[in-house]
Amino acid sequence: MNKIETVCRNVCEATEFVAIVTMGEGGPYMVGNWGEYMRTLGVRETTLVFPAGRYRQTEENLRRNDRIQLLVASKKVQGSRGGAGQGCLISGRGEIVTSGELVDEVKAKFAWARGALVVHVEEVQTQL
Amino acid sequence: MNKIETVCRNVCEATEFVAIVTMGEGGPYMVGNWGEYMRTLGVRETTLVFPAGRYRQTEENLRRNDRIQLLVASKKVQGSRGGAGQGCLISGRGEIVTSGELVDEVKAKFAWARGALVVHVEEVQTQL
Repeated sequence: MNKIETVCRNVCEATEFVAIVTMGEGGPYMVGNWGEYMRTLGVRETTLVFPAGRYRQTEENLRRNDRIQLLVASKKVQGSRGGAGQGCLISGRGEIVTSGELVDEVKAKFAWARGALVVHVEEVQTQL
Repeated sequence: MNKIETVCRNVCEATEFVAIVTMGEGGPYMVGNWGEYMRTLGVRETTLVFPAGRYRQTEENLRRNDRIQLLVASKKVQGSRGGAGQGCLISGRGEIVTSGELVDEVKAKFAWARGALVVHVEEVQTQL
């Protein structure tokens, strides 16, 4: 399943932040972004877009290895095993883009952004 | 700085979830836990404790390489560069323990837990 739908979409609509992991030379490299920023740019079907302020190390990592993982979670979404709270692990390929239509769109909404982190979703798994 | 203090403590007290990354054989491996669960067990000075339900892959990863990273974030905490929202990346060494006093404490609060994920904090950095 590579589409952001049903449960995972609900979690993306509710998560306060997004944890983003790429592979660095020295090991995993984790950064964050705000759920609100992702939602401002729209939770698309198979793509997620984030404003990129710095993300220099993430960019360098993605150039060597474009595998990327995102974790989103919210207590506001009903859990798949009952109880409040659902997480979602989103895996795919990522890139930092610094020009083009998408970047113009990002910069129009986030003046401080130097570009966009674009995630091409390949797999979605529920967690928590 | 290896102590959970000031800004990072505030973020730990507010974060809705915690993203947890270890190094697997095939790349970074990310799981989640709830901030509320971490807080129930107490945000200590240099140690964080989480109830471990499954975490089999995390356990295997930590046996090979005990480096672990956590990301916490909340819009409720004032950001270090102004504006609402602060993140915090916590790095250290982790282990899954399945017996002993600490595990008894975890199981008393989380009957479903098979043990505890214990994180020995070595570095704390603000993010976001």
